[in-house]
Amino acid sequence: MTNTRDQIIQTTSNLIENQGYHATGLNEIVKESGAPKGSIYYYFPDGKEGITAEAVLYAGETVAGRIRTHLDTKSDPARAVQSFVEEIAHFVEVSGFHSGGPLTIVASETATTSEKLNQTCREAYTMVREAFQSKLLESGFSQERAANLAWMITSVTEGAIILSRTYHSGDPLRIAARELACLINGCEN
Amino acid sequence: MTNTRDQIIQTTSNLIENQGYHATGLNEIVKESGAPKGSIYYYFPDGKEGITAEAVLYAGETVAGRIRTHLDTKSDPARAVQSFVEEIAHFVEVSGFHSGGPLTIVASETATTSEKLNQTCREAYTMVREAFQSKLLESGFSQERAANLAWMITSVTEGAIILSRTYHSGDPLRIAARELACLINGCEN
Repeated sequence: MTNTRDQIIQTTSNLIENQGYHATGLNEIVKESGAPKGSIYYYFPDGKEGITAEAVLYAGETVAGRIRTHLDTKSDPARAVQSFVEEIAHFVEVSGFHSGGPLTIVASETATTSEKLNQTCREAYTMVREAFQSKLLESGFSQERAANLAWMITSVTEGAIILSRTYHSGDPLRIAARELACLINGCEN
Repeated sequence: MTNTRDQIIQTTSNLIENQGYHATGLNEIVKESGAPKGSIYYYFPDGKEGITAEAVLYAGETVAGRIRTHLDTKSDPARAVQSFVEEIAHFVEVSGFHSGGPLTIVASETATTSEKLNQTCREAYTMVREAFQSKLLESGFSQERAANLAWMITSVTEGAIILSRTYHSGDPLRIAARELACLINGCEN
């Protein structure tokens, strides 16, 4: 049962990644997921918008979880953030520059067109920001400095993923990783 | 004559901004622009892909032009970049968080699905990067430092526009503006 639900969410994520939210139709989700149409309405009475909200939240939770796990492996926050962003560079490269996740594209397409999805994208980005912010707070940064740096890390990672996918190179992310380390360290290096 | 061509490009830009590239159909472009279908094929024999390529290049040229004009108004490169990014915050706010331009969304949707549009998005981002880079070179930064900072400025601006539109607030861009000034100044402030 849970597998069908997860399969529907995963299929929708992939379709959105490949072609965008507005271009993805419910019939395509039915066809690609192999799930009976009835089960889609059973799990997601709101249809495409409801499935997409789940996909966005799932992406936010997954990314926030990966950030926390990775940042925990290094005590220095600058090195921790740098190596996390370098890891994204690696993942974007091994995916063949295909994989960006559904969050960016849904956020861009629905910022002013779906209140529900806009709200869901904010929740997902907040999970991501808070994962960075926690590490910075634990490392002794003030609340304000940690919050500002977390916004900055989230913005630059988001933008550098787009540039890395566009240029078919992990280098924009690697440059971002080094510059962020410099910013977190107060550019002493 | 030129007006019809420009009108087709502008209409396509707006449609892509609102709903994405893949969801925008040629018939919708015909209907919304009010241009006869024949004139669309006359100006753009490649159809939707060709019009979108022009829209992306036009966006890149326009943004690069605005960057150069704005950065020329201030001699200090950190203050110049900061006030430019703060100006974007203002524009995103007055647009009602609607306006992101076609570049981000086309780049995200076509990174691995259209070689022509992928190439065009690279050209557009390169114009933008070079506009920042020129200012940094003029200000005495080394070639390598200017290039890295220009990648970073482009990435963070791109990401912070998405976050500002998502959170319906110019603040992510204002935070990015201050952090970039800090980075350009070597965080001496």
